[in-house]
Amino acid sequence: MKKERINLLGAGLIGSLLAIYLRKRGLEVSIFEKRQDWRHLNVSGEGRSINMALSYRGWKALERAGIKDKVIPYTQAMYGRRIHDEHGDTFFQPYGKEDQAIYSISRNAFNKILLDEAEAQGASVHFGHKVEHVNVAAREVSFSLEDGSEKSIHSEVLIGSDGAYSALRNAFQSQLRFNFNQQYISHGYKELSIPPSPEGEFAMDPNALHIWPRGKFMLIALPNLDKSFTCTLFLPFEGYKVSFANIHDERDIEQVFKTHFNDAYNLMPNLLEDFTRNPTAALINTECYPWTENNTLLIGDAAHAMVPFYGQGMNCGFEDCSILDGLIAKYGTSSWDLVFEKFQKGRKPDTDAICQLAMDNFVEMSDNVADPKFLIRKKIEARLHELYPQEWVPLYSMVTFSEMKYSEAYAIGKLQEKVMDRVMSDPLITQNWDRLDYEDILHQVVVSGAV
Amino acid sequence: MKKERINLLGAGLIGSLLAIYLRKRGLEVSIFEKRQDWRHLNVSGEGRSINMALSYRGWKALERAGIKDKVIPYTQAMYGRRIHDEHGDTFFQPYGKEDQAIYSISRNAFNKILLDEAEAQGASVHFGHKVEHVNVAAREVSFSLEDGSEKSIHSEVLIGSDGAYSALRNAFQSQLRFNFNQQYISHGYKELSIPPSPEGEFAMDPNALHIWPRGKFMLIALPNLDKSFTCTLFLPFEGYKVSFANIHDERDIEQVFKTHFNDAYNLMPNLLEDFTRNPTAALINTECYPWTENNTLLIGDAAHAMVPFYGQGMNCGFEDCSILDGLIAKYGTSSWDLVFEKFQKGRKPDTDAICQLAMDNFVEMSDNVADPKFLIRKKIEARLHELYPQEWVPLYSMVTFSEMKYSEAYAIGKLQEKVMDRVMSDPLITQNWDRLDYEDILHQVVVSGAV
Repeated sequence: MKKERINLLGAGLIGSLLAIYLRKRGLEVSIFEKRQDWRHLNVSGEGRSINMALSYRGWKALERAGIKDKVIPYTQAMYGRRIHDEHGDTFFQPYGKEDQAIYSISRNAFNKILLDEAEAQGASVHFGHKVEHVNVAAREVSFSLEDGSEKSIHSEVLIGSDGAYSALRNAFQSQLRFNFNQQYISHGYKELSIPPSPEGEFAMDPNALHIWPRGKFMLIALPNLDKSFTCTLFLPFEGYKVSFANIHDERDIEQVFKTHFNDAYNLMPNLLEDFTRNPTAALINTECYPWTENNTLLIGDAAHAMVPFYGQGMNCGFEDCSILDGLIAKYGTSSWDLVFEKFQKGRKPDTDAICQLAMDNFVEMSDNVADPKFLIRKKIEARLHELYPQEWVPLYSMVTFSEMKYSEAYAIGKLQEKVMDRVMSDPLITQNWDRLDYEDILHQVVVSGAV
Repeated sequence: MKKERINLLGAGLIGSLLAIYLRKRGLEVSIFEKRQDWRHLNVSGEGRSINMALSYRGWKALERAGIKDKVIPYTQAMYGRRIHDEHGDTFFQPYGKEDQAIYSISRNAFNKILLDEAEAQGASVHFGHKVEHVNVAAREVSFSLEDGSEKSIHSEVLIGSDGAYSALRNAFQSQLRFNFNQQYISHGYKELSIPPSPEGEFAMDPNALHIWPRGKFMLIALPNLDKSFTCTLFLPFEGYKVSFANIHDERDIEQVFKTHFNDAYNLMPNLLEDFTRNPTAALINTECYPWTENNTLLIGDAAHAMVPFYGQGMNCGFEDCSILDGLIAKYGTSSWDLVFEKFQKGRKPDTDAICQLAMDNFVEMSDNVADPKFLIRKKIEARLHELYPQEWVPLYSMVTFSEMKYSEAYAIGKLQEKVMDRVMSDPLITQNWDRLDYEDILHQVVVSGAV
């Protein structure tokens, strides 16, 4: 029996997980990766976020691929946000119910687990293959190799899991009637770090995602297994007093941190070195369509790169893989065009929704979370969820702790938002919030949305 | 005195006119063009629209460049739309006042006039230079030449007038924090032709733009100096009974034309040949920002490619050139970054507006123009314009017969639309339209928009 060969571009998180799925379906898999094999080197994330936050959708996809148990030991549970105010005081906002958490994991460690598994399952990985050109009609990819030579391959089936700057997508853009939108937001980010305390312990609460929300900018920190934290500073590139354009030297760095993040500053002995050494990275949102042409497919960030403010980029990409696997199970491999067409048609509304939610969530993370009225709003929603666990699930929970379609979560979230806006318009809400007619609030959503 | 050299990419209509402007400011100008010198060859438009419709903004820009008089003899005035219904009956809709017209001109003839003039003014034109790569930071462009050799140039100032698929814009996309959106519409087009009658005369009214509006598709025809018409068929690519996907052979072509465009069909002896030989072309809208970086600039379609349904693509590009020339006159050439920054800031809202209007106008051209209520609406608007020539100018006229900023025309158009929707909601409007309180209608716009 002739086995079909699938060629993947990109051995990142999505490409590696997809390779595992495809191998388990008995397909031949080759992955072509630009980088050299980095697994035994001590490298950082090439300017990309070093920590990922794994949540329900991601776990389900790992479980389906049979790799969940290997990943668990590398994760650190975060049960909520710990908000740091300007005075160094902190308070805790649970993400969901008591046992619901998102899980911090190092990108590199995670990628290594998945890629090792893909290889163990029989995928062949070709490192140092930089895509120079893709001819979509011929399904020909030409690569330049590290030694300066060139190489071309023909694929029966070609999948671009090659990220936000996908080479396959670039080829789609110039070779197809292809709708494409790329948008950079006004903010950039820089990775920083908080090492373990002198006693070798976590310097802060290790079971939370820490946020220093400052309105137009913010700092966040995620725990690592080695008891350090990886921090990410989000600032406008320019146009504001506190912006990357206004940080010229070490004095400016210290000034910003002492003024706005003083408690974090005291935990960051490497601040100046980190700040100077690490690149200032941009944040892009891309949406495009179609995702498939002539037995080729875009998947993960290549199809829909989102900003990181909902922590769903990787989880969404993993869910892509799981959905695609389900379609292969259902329709077989005799018509890849059919499988890929079903995939894009079914999935596109959901990735549009999560891209939009991620964009909107910057305001929630950097501003709302510090607003007392927002906290009351969250409490009311939590109470609703407690009273009506099936009927009222907060948007964050639908996205983060369920497998509900993103587009459905988005639509329900909009209905809830309208109702909650009305509830919050009561001038006495601060006093009355725990004496509300909760059944009536629920009813308003049910009526207006016919949920 | 050291003369500054400006390098332009693309010797199309916009690049050629811009070269004339820049030469008149005493700047050295080199144009690099992908094609061979086509001026003495008998070529068609490479799948691009063969006829252009020159209107007020275009004429003003030509006048400012001192080239208007050379263009006039090559144009054919069109004073309105001549609508062809399914029975072959036609009626005429004037575009504006009696003497207001748009002017049909052949793209090739026009490009030749402008490029000849640019050369006469001292611009040097380098044909057969295909851009392979642009390094924006270094302002380096590498070209491949016809003989297979490569060549690199460095520019002090580099302007991309290289159209909807601009190479400079592609470089921006991968090298800058660049917002970019490309959208293909569901329709494509094909150029066809109506030759002169056997007597050597125009086969139809030569002073109109002919439209066969059929809802989801349409045919249009523009007159040429040789008494032929160039026709353009706009059809959905797929998803409808009448679509390019459903036209498989000559029988299908004849079937569509006999059924829907029978009067045109009788004038098209070359239909089958034209249809088979000419490519089916796609229609793209692109919007992007920024337009400038490091003394480089995008202009014309490279900065804002629009669909052709408002007939403004070229006119807008010419206006770009004229506005840029005004800024050079005002700010001089000691800081190109300043000039280019002023240009993009001032111009972007206007090109966004005309891109949107062009997109919306497909419905007007292909559907509304055949609707009796639409005709009454147009009559009411014409009456308002007659009564209040300054206060009520129809949107089409603001766009086509004035130099008002596109964004302002757009905003006023939206106000007028609201008022007219209300006027047209009168169930007896068909009987009453010429007995309306016109002063009150005008007043509604003035009040709601504080015009």
